[in-house]
Amino acid sequence: MTNDKNVNLKNLSVQEKRDFLRSADSSQIKKIFRKVSPSEIAEIIGGLPSDELVDILEVFPKSQQTEILENIDTEKARKVSQLLLYGKDTAGGMMAVEFSAFNQNVTIEVVIDKIRKDSPDTNRAFYIYVVDDMNRLLGVISLRDLITKPPQTVIRNILKKSVVSVPHILDREATANFFQKYNFLAIPVVDEKNCILGIITADDVSRAVRQEATEDLIRITGISSDDLSIDAPLTLSLKKRLPWLVFNMFLDVIAVSVVAIYQGTIQAVVAIAVLMPVISDMSGNTGFQGLTLIVRGFALGKISTKDFWKIFRRQSILGLITGIVLGLEVALLAYLWKWNPYFGLVAGAAMFCSIYIAGFVGIMIPLFLKFIKVDPAVATGPVLTTITDLTGFFITLSLATKAIDLIK
Amino acid sequence: MTNDKNVNLKNLSVQEKRDFLRSADSSQIKKIFRKVSPSEIAEIIGGLPSDELVDILEVFPKSQQTEILENIDTEKARKVSQLLLYGKDTAGGMMAVEFSAFNQNVTIEVVIDKIRKDSPDTNRAFYIYVVDDMNRLLGVISLRDLITKPPQTVIRNILKKSVVSVPHILDREATANFFQKYNFLAIPVVDEKNCILGIITADDVSRAVRQEATEDLIRITGISSDDLSIDAPLTLSLKKRLPWLVFNMFLDVIAVSVVAIYQGTIQAVVAIAVLMPVISDMSGNTGFQGLTLIVRGFALGKISTKDFWKIFRRQSILGLITGIVLGLEVALLAYLWKWNPYFGLVAGAAMFCSIYIAGFVGIMIPLFLKFIKVDPAVATGPVLTTITDLTGFFITLSLATKAIDLIK
Repeated sequence: MTNDKNVNLKNLSVQEKRDFLRSADSSQIKKIFRKVSPSEIAEIIGGLPSDELVDILEVFPKSQQTEILENIDTEKARKVSQLLLYGKDTAGGMMAVEFSAFNQNVTIEVVIDKIRKDSPDTNRAFYIYVVDDMNRLLGVISLRDLITKPPQTVIRNILKKSVVSVPHILDREATANFFQKYNFLAIPVVDEKNCILGIITADDVSRAVRQEATEDLIRITGISSDDLSIDAPLTLSLKKRLPWLVFNMFLDVIAVSVVAIYQGTIQAVVAIAVLMPVISDMSGNTGFQGLTLIVRGFALGKISTKDFWKIFRRQSILGLITGIVLGLEVALLAYLWKWNPYFGLVAGAAMFCSIYIAGFVGIMIPLFLKFIKVDPAVATGPVLTTITDLTGFFITLSLATKAIDLIK
Repeated sequence: MTNDKNVNLKNLSVQEKRDFLRSADSSQIKKIFRKVSPSEIAEIIGGLPSDELVDILEVFPKSQQTEILENIDTEKARKVSQLLLYGKDTAGGMMAVEFSAFNQNVTIEVVIDKIRKDSPDTNRAFYIYVVDDMNRLLGVISLRDLITKPPQTVIRNILKKSVVSVPHILDREATANFFQKYNFLAIPVVDEKNCILGIITADDVSRAVRQEATEDLIRITGISSDDLSIDAPLTLSLKKRLPWLVFNMFLDVIAVSVVAIYQGTIQAVVAIAVLMPVISDMSGNTGFQGLTLIVRGFALGKISTKDFWKIFRRQSILGLITGIVLGLEVALLAYLWKWNPYFGLVAGAAMFCSIYIAGFVGIMIPLFLKFIKVDPAVATGPVLTTITDLTGFFITLSLATKAIDLIK
């Protein structure tokens, strides 16, 4: 698959070109079309389903989008322009306009006649939707009825009313969870008046699920999705990663300023400087587990802000047991190292408090962001470790300072 | 959606029960069926498509699986037992056995007659596969041909030979990437002799993609997928998370033993104890970015082991620039704090070296695991930070020791 990367599109058939484009990322698409004229681009991508065409068009700047669209079949270009208006992260932005909808008063014969004329790509999901005179969604007819009922049957009489649809403004994550719940291969997207606008097929959903998973990783590790390709320009990778790292160091400096305040304690008991990284690392790890749980839980639709108290109570007990076990472990190791029971006690107590607090910080950051309806697209992972470092250092150093005469 | 969690299945219709089960995780399924007899379970899940039935059955121990299967329709139970034999992470483990395949010598009339008799669920994807006398896959026939060609047409004459299939042993990740490349709604799964065994539909793929994304998070943060539900028993969460944390602390102790060796340096220049957490945190972050890039790159099929040198060269330059920028930043801050240019120099040099090494460690861990064909199901994130802590501490303390007279 890797050898596709630097492929010369010219040697490929139209179908191969399309297959390649479907799995390419934005930097690959830009690279490939750099020296290609808008009319040639239009020729290659014009035959793609509307939703995939939109995904590729979105890589280009507005002016170039217009140029490409001018070279595409007028009717299709009109539909695609409309699709470009929907938010990328909504059901509207995921849908394709290739679907079959018929007025309830037509006969099976009309439907079959239309299918005969359509290109085979038009309705890959083979659901046939039924609408009223206002284009409002009434139901769906099955392939079986279509084949087995007399051709003169009016479709109003064979429609199934139990059709499930999603509003075009539903966000991508919720749409994906909706699909997961009902195992449909396609779901119609409707507007406020229940008029059918397009369909989302299950393959679009798996694409969306991948993007969501990548977004979660951005939140957690500060890697951008544009940066996930080894073909992305180095300047892009640097532009995406460096500002975040530079900012993160400022956060770190705030955290270590606590250490600077307690320099006297460290000078008196250097062993504390050995202990500190263990405590900050372990509280970081504990916090990350809680953070991951909540971020993925929201993404998979397994939790909502209503679960706040349940998550809180759960964490109270989890943090308690984790803190006790790790506190005892470090207390024992510290005692064995210095043969000073008070040093062991300080180490254990500092670990317990830091772990307990870190667990709450880990669940609170994403819960809080969700609660104030901010999409945590910011890297919450680094913020977490800065807070856990800060509390870990403060607890360890202030406990050590209090017990300084016993542990010196 | 959250209110579904503690639902009493008894009050739901069969369809609602099935919708609920589809989105439930293993601990919810266990909880719900705790007091339900095998025959009642069979009644509820017996009507599910075979692939979903298998997913639910896998939650139960072998003995209970047999009891449930004894209460399911014999023909279906036989098929499901076979599906249970495939590896969960292969195309065989993802497929359903509900598909339509016809011998090449039958007529359209026979196909339509079969569709009339089948339940509507049988062939959700509406692809009709054509096989020879040995059940080997020959091609596919389109809905359009089915409706528009004369009923006496033998299907051999209208089949499209360009059918894409996957071998049953293909792993889940590769299968998902295959779907992503071609936008089919279903792909047939075949054995070594090209005989059709089942089909995978696009909705199964998005489920697989979610599981893969979660597996990546396990590698990175040490959260298990069983643990991703807030309804999972506390003991399960502790059993999954605690051993890993306890082990991690031992790794940490190894890392900080370096600090213990250099206690003299810290006592002489306490400012080094302030610097160390900044350097270890920043190298951890840089390493994580590389790690995430490679882990997700493999999952999305964007990179392979063949790209080793390309990734290596790329990281050489990325690490260089990142190291220089962050090195200068910390050198400036350290200088402004102590007004000692040598202290700034030590801080900057230590940061540069640590960042440069951490970047390589981040990409090497997953590349190495992939190269020796080990699935990095182990938590690679904690291993990474232990190595980056170790190198960061060692570099900082040894540089500071060398320059001790200048920075004191």
